[in-house]
Amino acid sequence: MSLDKTFPSYIEGYGTVKPYAGPFATAPSAHRYGPKLSSSKPGDSKIVSNLEAALEKSGIRDGMTISFHHHLRNGDYIVNMVMDKIAEMGIKDITICASSLTNAHEPLIEHIRNGVVTGLHTSGLRGKIGKAQATENILGKPVVFRTHGGRARAIEAGEIKIDIAFIGASACDPMGNMNGVEGKSAFGSMGYPMVDAQYADKVVVITDNICPFPLSKIAIPMQYVDYIIEVESIGDTALIATGATRVTKNPTDLLIAKRAAEVLVASGYIKEGYSFQAGSGGASLAVCKYLKDYMTEHQIVGSFAAGGVTGYLVELLEQGYFKALLDTQTFDVMAVDSIRDNTNHIEMSASMYANPHNKACSAHQLDVMILSATEIDTQFNINSLTGSTGLIMGALGGAPDTAAGAKLTVVVAPTMRKRIPIVVDKVTNIVTPGDTVDVLVTERGISVNPKRQDIQNMLDQAGIKTLSIEDHLKLVEKFTGKPDHISYTDEIVGVVEYRDGTVIDLIYKVKTT
Amino acid sequence: MSLDKTFPSYIEGYGTVKPYAGPFATAPSAHRYGPKLSSSKPGDSKIVSNLEAALEKSGIRDGMTISFHHHLRNGDYIVNMVMDKIAEMGIKDITICASSLTNAHEPLIEHIRNGVVTGLHTSGLRGKIGKAQATENILGKPVVFRTHGGRARAIEAGEIKIDIAFIGASACDPMGNMNGVEGKSAFGSMGYPMVDAQYADKVVVITDNICPFPLSKIAIPMQYVDYIIEVESIGDTALIATGATRVTKNPTDLLIAKRAAEVLVASGYIKEGYSFQAGSGGASLAVCKYLKDYMTEHQIVGSFAAGGVTGYLVELLEQGYFKALLDTQTFDVMAVDSIRDNTNHIEMSASMYANPHNKACSAHQLDVMILSATEIDTQFNINSLTGSTGLIMGALGGAPDTAAGAKLTVVVAPTMRKRIPIVVDKVTNIVTPGDTVDVLVTERGISVNPKRQDIQNMLDQAGIKTLSIEDHLKLVEKFTGKPDHISYTDEIVGVVEYRDGTVIDLIYKVKTT
Repeated sequence: MSLDKTFPSYIEGYGTVKPYAGPFATAPSAHRYGPKLSSSKPGDSKIVSNLEAALEKSGIRDGMTISFHHHLRNGDYIVNMVMDKIAEMGIKDITICASSLTNAHEPLIEHIRNGVVTGLHTSGLRGKIGKAQATENILGKPVVFRTHGGRARAIEAGEIKIDIAFIGASACDPMGNMNGVEGKSAFGSMGYPMVDAQYADKVVVITDNICPFPLSKIAIPMQYVDYIIEVESIGDTALIATGATRVTKNPTDLLIAKRAAEVLVASGYIKEGYSFQAGSGGASLAVCKYLKDYMTEHQIVGSFAAGGVTGYLVELLEQGYFKALLDTQTFDVMAVDSIRDNTNHIEMSASMYANPHNKACSAHQLDVMILSATEIDTQFNINSLTGSTGLIMGALGGAPDTAAGAKLTVVVAPTMRKRIPIVVDKVTNIVTPGDTVDVLVTERGISVNPKRQDIQNMLDQAGIKTLSIEDHLKLVEKFTGKPDHISYTDEIVGVVEYRDGTVIDLIYKVKTT
Repeated sequence: MSLDKTFPSYIEGYGTVKPYAGPFATAPSAHRYGPKLSSSKPGDSKIVSNLEAALEKSGIRDGMTISFHHHLRNGDYIVNMVMDKIAEMGIKDITICASSLTNAHEPLIEHIRNGVVTGLHTSGLRGKIGKAQATENILGKPVVFRTHGGRARAIEAGEIKIDIAFIGASACDPMGNMNGVEGKSAFGSMGYPMVDAQYADKVVVITDNICPFPLSKIAIPMQYVDYIIEVESIGDTALIATGATRVTKNPTDLLIAKRAAEVLVASGYIKEGYSFQAGSGGASLAVCKYLKDYMTEHQIVGSFAAGGVTGYLVELLEQGYFKALLDTQTFDVMAVDSIRDNTNHIEMSASMYANPHNKACSAHQLDVMILSATEIDTQFNINSLTGSTGLIMGALGGAPDTAAGAKLTVVVAPTMRKRIPIVVDKVTNIVTPGDTVDVLVTERGISVNPKRQDIQNMLDQAGIKTLSIEDHLKLVEKFTGKPDHISYTDEIVGVVEYRDGTVIDLIYKVKTT
């Protein structure tokens, strides 16, 4: 199914546009990218005295693409450390390929304004940079937004070639064997840079914990690493578990979560060996709280839970509710301890997690996916990237990946936040296409995507009341009225790629008065 | 340093010859190979009912290159199972790229004679096939011999492209996550096929133990796997630990090992944090028996021991003599238990082990390497592949890799076996070049490579008597006489590649009367 959107066939600063044609309509025909071959000799030393030396040895120069990972989230020191040094060295025209960017990366705005950074590929963008790009096009070209699976895919396919990957490691030996689970700055899974390390031409590890060779827990092995620098600290791990990663205490969210759990049970998917993932935020994580009671009562053990992993999922693993956790990104200290010590808490790369163009990914093994949303429209399309003002203030994350993969995708969201409607006629931007979304649960009701008549029937049989998405919208509009239309210029400031590399939406510059 | 050998610039059935130019003289300039991209969908099933179906789905056809790994050694069922089926299907002209071949694979000879198999790339070849190739050129073109590191390098560089990789797994989940450490046929590390899986266009897993998804110990992840078939048994693990992997009880070998240990100590390399590897066979493994006493006495703890891992090395790990084991190939049941349960027993790919053309390998981190030899000559060149009769009856293994990497490479060998001299004027074929070999220890004496005057001085200071390699040879020739020269035809039946892809020697067809 394609969307009723038209895109130009070519976008300056992006390239040729392949339009979205359905969740599994676009298959690859090419070969994987092969990075440059290297060589090593006995006695080689990879430890470099400082960042500038590592940059020089890696051949940093104008126009390069460099990559980062966001496992340290709001506590990350790596991006700013590297970009400040690159700016100081007088390098310009850098494209950043980040797994995501957080509020910690706001200082990038100066590097963008100064021409040090002229390209951004990321899963998310927020705060000042998101606003400035949406209203001013400060990059002068579109930001490319990719899902976690889509980023792995694009790197593996050579659609984005990383000249230098910067990897923060909480433990690294002198030859570059590294992990994220040991040391004072342990952050857990290294899911994202596992891909970067394999495909980047040069790899620089930044660590605050050089350990004796050989490191025994190896997330990324030494054969991918060029240089290592030791710094005082790679980040503030206290800031990893913020915002989106806590289980809600909000009564509305809890109500929604409870109803969502009822929907899941009624749909028949909560049975022995089922698999489960919940996105971050709001009611999403709270759903498993309610599922737990049902699993206890019916003596159900799930196979795996996946995704960004929190302490709450760890408890479910330890208590025997799930047999395994699959983890690309670890969200709190309890989960870091678990991935280090529990052999059933499995570290996986972003490619293994969600890349549609390899031979399997965990997203495609999911039974149930719980998503949150900034907006959802009457086609069940989800927006989690832009606000109703048109500003860029969110992320794609793994939502489009897991929605496509899961047998049942349920969106949990309140109908409005601060009188801004979440259920809308048309989402500001499409991030997760409606043909991969099955049910919406809000505090005001439950709507089933008409293409899932099977689910509708199950809910009807269980006596669960539903309403059409259109009626859902009308209920909301009673309170919020119809939202104002945003006025845009014709300047494209963001390209939203679907996980398969097609373009699912464009973000235009907002007209400011 | 190059060798005084001349090679044709092009060899039919092999290709262009780049001659060996020194252990680190030849660096790569190209890119890694990128195999074909794939895609997966929810609900995909990889389990195929039988081998024939897996072969058909993988697109098997005449002229393809397929790969195998030899972790099950003499107990391996996989190669014969697959090749018998391919023959039955009427497929011809297959090139086999095996990490090595053992006596278990003698049935291949019929497939070669029948034109099913027309190309062989392997580390070793023995028995009937080795004899038939050396005397009859049954393939009609040269066998390509590669080191363990060289094979990984050639695959990664795309010099050999694997159409279908066959991987025996002792545990595999329905999506292809696999290991070699669980199940009735557990054999340990999956070091070799880790490389094949990443670079082959199609990957077929053959297992006798399908486990629930997700397998928690993952040696090779699902994103590389196309098809899975379940069979009664992948091999007889009782036959893994045969021949070359036992510590010797032979008094001559023990004497040699004791002297070698004295050389190591006198050379100053046995100190806190040193690393150690011993090849399989004869006196080689026995050396660490003697080192252990010295380490105890001087309270020395080594960093890592590596290579093919035996129970003896596991004991040293467990007793605290070494902090870690790095394992590409596991040689006995005790070592299998260890790699499964001991987090300091680390599984590594053949590329991480010994590929000279990546950014680090464990072979290059070695302090001490102990090698055995079939022949060693006055240039310290080692032959471990062909006999003095010219027959092919051995393997390259990791010897050329580790000899190049280690700070000190010591050859331990008796001067003769059954009156056949081991110390010779010129080795029948060069496998490990003399410029990477430092000391020879036999039951009759110790010779130091003249280029290692530093070692010579250390031994002199320690009062260890040495003799020149030429005198060593004279001693031997007193007993054995000068060996007969072999008469060869001008037909090339084997190409011996050095680890960097250059040609270090050619094996010619032996003239038979």
